[in-house]
Amino acid sequence: MDTGNWLDAVRWDDKGLVTAIAQDAATQRVLMVAWMDRQALALTAVTGVAHYFSRSRGRLWKKGEESGHLQTVSEMRLDCDGDVIVLQITQVGGIACHTGRESCFYRVWRDGAWQVTDPVRKDPAAIYGHGPSA
Amino acid sequence: MDTGNWLDAVRWDDKGLVTAIAQDAATQRVLMVAWMDRQALALTAVTGVAHYFSRSRGRLWKKGEESGHLQTVSEMRLDCDGDVIVLQITQVGGIACHTGRESCFYRVWRDGAWQVTDPVRKDPAAIYGHGPSA
Repeated sequence: MDTGNWLDAVRWDDKGLVTAIAQDAATQRVLMVAWMDRQALALTAVTGVAHYFSRSRGRLWKKGEESGHLQTVSEMRLDCDGDVIVLQITQVGGIACHTGRESCFYRVWRDGAWQVTDPVRKDPAAIYGHGPSA
Repeated sequence: MDTGNWLDAVRWDDKGLVTAIAQDAATQRVLMVAWMDRQALALTAVTGVAHYFSRSRGRLWKKGEESGHLQTVSEMRLDCDGDVIVLQITQVGGIACHTGRESCFYRVWRDGAWQVTDPVRKDPAAIYGHGPSA
């Protein structure tokens, strides 16, 4: 695979990262937003499985490496100024959020507050052997 | 409107900004990604029309202020760690991108390259009186 030009077309920020949106390929729901570095994006393209860069852990993060909740990627799109990627993904286990919910966007703005609308599908303690990480 | 607690629940970055994803309320297509500061988010909530913070211009940006391509907002969601908002919007004119396309995500990764797949709906020169801005 050519790992040259198409990676250079991405406008990496000053930390070498790009924003990545994971959207459910079937429902089109936005499930999560994370970051990718050059290695994560290249690995995602090669393997067809979503890889990100964990800012909190400062390392490559294969989504689902602990939880088993992998994401298979069917499409990647880049925006006009090259600093955001949208991934069309299929979410193994139906849980993208470390809280055990389908989507990280489980709070809706209503009556002047962010209100939780989505159920927890699985207790994070049952997903992760130890402290939650996605 | 209470402009207190719900704005404090957002995890503003070191520049006082949060990432905002505009998603077509009807088709669920991701149309664009921009930034909001506190004022932009409060105005969006009050008016029901999307306001962002333009980093390039360093000021409040009512989307469509030049082009007429306003966005009416039907829902706002906040993610688990509070640093990304998803807006469900209706895009006036059917054009969100400053290139004159429906979506900023008009390039798809295929055969090792980002390939343009989406047509220009309207020439930017006809949208904007001068240099393109959305």
